[in-house]
Amino acid sequence: MIEPKTLSGFMELLPSDQILFNNIKDVIRKTYEKYGFLPLDTPVIESSDVLLAKAGGETEKQIYQFSKGDNNLCLRFDLTVPLAKYVALNFNELAFPFARYQIGKVYRGERPQKGRFREFYQCDIDVVGKDSLSLYYDALIPSVIYNIFKEINIGKFKISVSNRKLLMGLFEYLGLVDSSVEILRLIDKFSKIGEQNFVETLKCDYKISDDCMQKILDFIKIDGTVTEQLDKLKNLDIKNDKFVLGVNELEFVTKQMLVFGIDKDYFNIDLSIARGLDYYTGTVYETTIIGYESLGSVSSGGRYDNLASFYTKEKLPGVGMSIGLTRLFYKLKEHNIISDEEKSLSKAIILPMGDTFNECIALSNVLRQKNINNVLYLENTKFKNKISYANKLGIKYAIFIGEDEVKNNCVTIKNLSTFEQQSLSKEELVKFLQIDYLK
Amino acid sequence: MIEPKTLSGFMELLPSDQILFNNIKDVIRKTYEKYGFLPLDTPVIESSDVLLAKAGGETEKQIYQFSKGDNNLCLRFDLTVPLAKYVALNFNELAFPFARYQIGKVYRGERPQKGRFREFYQCDIDVVGKDSLSLYYDALIPSVIYNIFKEINIGKFKISVSNRKLLMGLFEYLGLVDSSVEILRLIDKFSKIGEQNFVETLKCDYKISDDCMQKILDFIKIDGTVTEQLDKLKNLDIKNDKFVLGVNELEFVTKQMLVFGIDKDYFNIDLSIARGLDYYTGTVYETTIIGYESLGSVSSGGRYDNLASFYTKEKLPGVGMSIGLTRLFYKLKEHNIISDEEKSLSKAIILPMGDTFNECIALSNVLRQKNINNVLYLENTKFKNKISYANKLGIKYAIFIGEDEVKNNCVTIKNLSTFEQQSLSKEELVKFLQIDYLK
Repeated sequence: MIEPKTLSGFMELLPSDQILFNNIKDVIRKTYEKYGFLPLDTPVIESSDVLLAKAGGETEKQIYQFSKGDNNLCLRFDLTVPLAKYVALNFNELAFPFARYQIGKVYRGERPQKGRFREFYQCDIDVVGKDSLSLYYDALIPSVIYNIFKEINIGKFKISVSNRKLLMGLFEYLGLVDSSVEILRLIDKFSKIGEQNFVETLKCDYKISDDCMQKILDFIKIDGTVTEQLDKLKNLDIKNDKFVLGVNELEFVTKQMLVFGIDKDYFNIDLSIARGLDYYTGTVYETTIIGYESLGSVSSGGRYDNLASFYTKEKLPGVGMSIGLTRLFYKLKEHNIISDEEKSLSKAIILPMGDTFNECIALSNVLRQKNINNVLYLENTKFKNKISYANKLGIKYAIFIGEDEVKNNCVTIKNLSTFEQQSLSKEELVKFLQIDYLK
Repeated sequence: MIEPKTLSGFMELLPSDQILFNNIKDVIRKTYEKYGFLPLDTPVIESSDVLLAKAGGETEKQIYQFSKGDNNLCLRFDLTVPLAKYVALNFNELAFPFARYQIGKVYRGERPQKGRFREFYQCDIDVVGKDSLSLYYDALIPSVIYNIFKEINIGKFKISVSNRKLLMGLFEYLGLVDSSVEILRLIDKFSKIGEQNFVETLKCDYKISDDCMQKILDFIKIDGTVTEQLDKLKNLDIKNDKFVLGVNELEFVTKQMLVFGIDKDYFNIDLSIARGLDYYTGTVYETTIIGYESLGSVSSGGRYDNLASFYTKEKLPGVGMSIGLTRLFYKLKEHNIISDEEKSLSKAIILPMGDTFNECIALSNVLRQKNINNVLYLENTKFKNKISYANKLGIKYAIFIGEDEVKNNCVTIKNLSTFEQQSLSKEELVKFLQIDYLK
């Protein structure tokens, strides 16, 4: 006998949690499709030379690599590299702007720890242009994410927006481009280490002039409403084309986010977003749940200049965001941010009382034809066992058919929470359950 | 620059085919859920000692195995072994009978050839009992598959049913149990090699008496309607308990399949089904598309006595069927059995004519709120490019908003196949598209 076990770092849910998980996944998919994003499903396994064209460092160490026959293979570690490959490979078949979504599992052999997974779902949307891509898409993308988080009912959240050109322009202006990575890391820690430490470290390590230092401090300290922040950015008087372009783009994108219907209380400008410095070139996004900021960003992304430079000479600028669903779900559950009230996909279970199996089957057929999911209990056990089964599945209504019901051509339906019970004709039952579905 | 490519044996579809594929996958999932099957999603990677508890021979050679750190890992090669592990592992949390569905990718490193895949979707349903499981479920399972194939509109098909106890009982009766695998292989070839060869080989290899030989021939040649076949089985006069039980079970299951609403023209008894001799112990199923019998079975399965004997002492009898979706889809496309008429998930594309982007965005928001999927075109290009984009995506209606439409608070909608064009208010547009969705 072998001990059954599931590897650590791999999420495997009980049915009631799986239903909750799928509900969220369905909201994500439906919202992506409402915006006209096209579905994509690429292989989990790719050739190593293709998948690792760009990888390196930390990421490469985490990748599941192996050989089979003569092939060096990898499990995908994100959905972006497969997208790049796909667009390069099918360039002539695709219509641009190419807006695709992909929801699928990716693999990273991280050290397993609470809340970190080695197999996890990513839910990506990207719009990829040929040669150029309108800035309107930078406002469309976060509106998709906004509608998803509104619908899955996680309370208040905030989509933070910035533009990579601001920091890059500022560093260019200050002559600090070569140290940008290190300075960004310091900026990230600003609130933790305090202004004095920040200033001293910068001055000591990078010989920054008082004037430059003031610009950096003024930049970091920019706060207020979106409009106030944009005004302050303009008033910084940083004479650098990239910076000015960044301010203009940020102004346009935040203005258009309102047009796309994002409530102004649900987004802000956060100039400290330092995400993917080597990859993103314009707008960047992060999303936090208010009151649970320590959970980190639950959906991030941004604008990039060139999706697939490793595979094609075509210039493919794009913008996208991603939801790390497995980690998000784990956190929502851990912090009780989602409830599991609705834990069955079926409103009703049909229970034969005596030898009424065929009548029960016939009723189940009718309900299914009316698109009413139902469970049919076909074991011959005690009443107690039947009810206990229904309760364990979290089903709201039990429908009994015994000899009396057959004789009177009706059914008995019982609400298993309130214990209310009534006798209905089959037509009445269908209507009753259809109305209940709309609740 | 690295050449972008997808590994051979891995299906990667263009968006229009992906939409078709997903449509079928959705029908399968919705039907599984209508019957109250619970969703399951197990990891793609499992520990080798767990996954290979039972494997061996051909299967084991095909498995993707590799190590990561100290772990010996495997990619799952089916969804049955993960189910066995899951049920053994979560035995105390589950309600029995445990009816679950799982739709997911599995991996087999077969030699790649046309129509064979190394990564493919399996769509499984199983009902697993604790200690025992009612025979009614053996009729429920094929009715689920029947409803799926009816809905995806592949024309006439046939679910063939048999019972493993018939052949096992016959072999017991004839004292041929030890040679049953070889004889079954011969029976499989009966129509190919002809009766004379069949008889000579059997006599020569297994020293079968004339009387025994006659029984085997009588058994193989049984034909007619379901009722006629059952009568002939009874009249064979084979005095073996297993055989008699098999006949009774087959009679009950085929009778109940009618109660579950399977049209009698869509199933038959096929005594030559030899599938999974080592695993199935009762009812067995295969499904063929009429006119495309050479494609082989598109959905198979059966009843087994014990799901998880490698992981637990609990006795877990069950019954299930599986659809190999990737292969099925490939064949349906290859033989033009499904059409790709409906190749967009969006009925409408909104095209700004001039600087009416914000009006177009607002309309898109409204349509989405009414659950009408739509594509918003946000590039500033020539009219020709916009229409060509819409056509490439296969979208039925283009909605134009120019200065005139803004002035008159209306939109222009054009059917891109018929070129019919009309002017509608926004309210009329919503109604028009909602009605179109119901078509």
